[in-house]
Amino acid sequence: MAIDDRFYLSLAINEAWKYQGLTYPNPAVGCVITDKNGALLAVAAHRRAGLPHAELEAAKEALSKLNPLLTFPSEPNELYAFIGKNHNNLLKNSTFYVTLEPCSHQGLTPPCADLIVTLGAKKALIGAIDDTDKAKGGAQILQKAGIEVKTGVLSKECNELLEPFLLWQNGSFSFFKLALRLDGTYDNGIITPHEARIFTHKIRSVCDLIVIGGGTLRADNPLLDARLVNGKAPDALICTRQKTQKEANVFSVKNRETIIQSGLDFPKKYKNIMVEGGSNFLRAMSGRVDRFLIFHSYDFSLKGSKKIETDLKLKLLYQGCVGNCSFGWYRRAF
Amino acid sequence: MAIDDRFYLSLAINEAWKYQGLTYPNPAVGCVITDKNGALLAVAAHRRAGLPHAELEAAKEALSKLNPLLTFPSEPNELYAFIGKNHNNLLKNSTFYVTLEPCSHQGLTPPCADLIVTLGAKKALIGAIDDTDKAKGGAQILQKAGIEVKTGVLSKECNELLEPFLLWQNGSFSFFKLALRLDGTYDNGIITPHEARIFTHKIRSVCDLIVIGGGTLRADNPLLDARLVNGKAPDALICTRQKTQKEANVFSVKNRETIIQSGLDFPKKYKNIMVEGGSNFLRAMSGRVDRFLIFHSYDFSLKGSKKIETDLKLKLLYQGCVGNCSFGWYRRAF
Repeated sequence: MAIDDRFYLSLAINEAWKYQGLTYPNPAVGCVITDKNGALLAVAAHRRAGLPHAELEAAKEALSKLNPLLTFPSEPNELYAFIGKNHNNLLKNSTFYVTLEPCSHQGLTPPCADLIVTLGAKKALIGAIDDTDKAKGGAQILQKAGIEVKTGVLSKECNELLEPFLLWQNGSFSFFKLALRLDGTYDNGIITPHEARIFTHKIRSVCDLIVIGGGTLRADNPLLDARLVNGKAPDALICTRQKTQKEANVFSVKNRETIIQSGLDFPKKYKNIMVEGGSNFLRAMSGRVDRFLIFHSYDFSLKGSKKIETDLKLKLLYQGCVGNCSFGWYRRAF
Repeated sequence: MAIDDRFYLSLAINEAWKYQGLTYPNPAVGCVITDKNGALLAVAAHRRAGLPHAELEAAKEALSKLNPLLTFPSEPNELYAFIGKNHNNLLKNSTFYVTLEPCSHQGLTPPCADLIVTLGAKKALIGAIDDTDKAKGGAQILQKAGIEVKTGVLSKECNELLEPFLLWQNGSFSFFKLALRLDGTYDNGIITPHEARIFTHKIRSVCDLIVIGGGTLRADNPLLDARLVNGKAPDALICTRQKTQKEANVFSVKNRETIIQSGLDFPKKYKNIMVEGGSNFLRAMSGRVDRFLIFHSYDFSLKGSKKIETDLKLKLLYQGCVGNCSFGWYRRAF
């Protein structure tokens, strides 16, 4: 395996995908730092809004590795200021591998491009260019400071990582979440291990809207909340032509709006939309959602279980593990 | 993510798993080298018998990165001698991360432990200890030469990687190969992409025996050879109680013995055994095989396809991708 720019950027891409769906309203971004001798110091990602950007998190991990005695503040602004004062040139002539152009703007934290300049990096390898009005221009800041900027490596992969954010920014991002056993069955009890359900609830807690069909409502009577992580429940949309009992669990969740409609269009005000369901709802929705998040337990079912029936063909974007369970982000194959 | 001994050994473990099933009669082994400053130089694996051991392959890749002008011979003995003469102390004070204790014996190539000594490594991190009579003692060779040897990191994972080899050595290793769509169906045409079928044929070409049931013989009439890689076809065992037509394709393959029997026991003379089949044969064989190799295409099937019916529960050991297709090595969950 060649140990080159692609290798290091791949580490950053993979680390970022672990948090895809969790960083809303921010993009999933990964960052790797190597020191002046090429030694790997950090593989980090932006994990959720309110936590450090990938570059800041990576800088913290790199400095922590080089000086284990440093105690870092956790609040991102304080962390940014602390690193600015205490980096002690330890990252001088380092290389930053970032999946997305470092931001140039003052958001909740100061610009990441300025941080990389402050740290004295020698080179920055940037996967995807940031075209958003408020954040673009990071590469220019780096170049003006004399940092060598390289682009065009794994751009396709970095853009795939970024696309959910871009879709969200241009209107809305929606994905169908499905949990299957190895044999494609999805009924007869809980499918995925606890770790995967916690992961799902984390994702729910940053969604605006969760969508199910009437079939799921009647079969499972789900809460559709984020109780496993004490998170905010998204609003719920039930797509059904049948009359719905107001005693259903979904109505019992506080601080949530529940909408019932016969059509399948998502209401315009929602921007980050998770769809859950089984075979029928997948068929109905598969042309309407942007991505698919499929969990796979390593069990086969007993006889008589239902299997998904659709002729959907997908392309894998990332596969990971959570507990004794795999998950993959997919798009439709063309 | 912490960049530590576990991180580097994980890179070696993952690289080795890519070639699990292909290295027979050798074990799957991975090796990572970092230089005196901790910079990553190589992530390599033993890819198949007759190609260099993981340590030799990693040394070649590391030297090639440090001195791109070197032209290496491909024959392993020549490569070993060449590296001994031309390493130019470039790997002085390097660290070797190996999933298995470096061999101490003269096999087809000289001992890997001696190579690591010759290169002047400072430290060796060893995942699994080699207890085989002919190869053990590599760690002692390193220690006598003043190399720091560390063990006990990711031993469980390194032993999982090694287990197919140990089972083979202690009698036989058998695994059930299955190809499924995302929905668990496996009929109605080819399931996996060409790359996955090439991978399967590579594995077949190093197996002694391929086993199918009468159902597969009658439904698919397969050749069960390794034609996609011009490899040797393994002997074939058909487990069936029904009369088998001698015109079946399996009999047409040259230089292969085909056995027909009603029982499910593997003949004693075979040591590396691949079992293929569908739902019924999986149920019959799942208690008899050591591991499961399951390919997953990212398609769903059309209506009316058969799905696997068993209540088997598995534990994932490794998941990888080949073409637009995932595969996993599994063991039974206890």
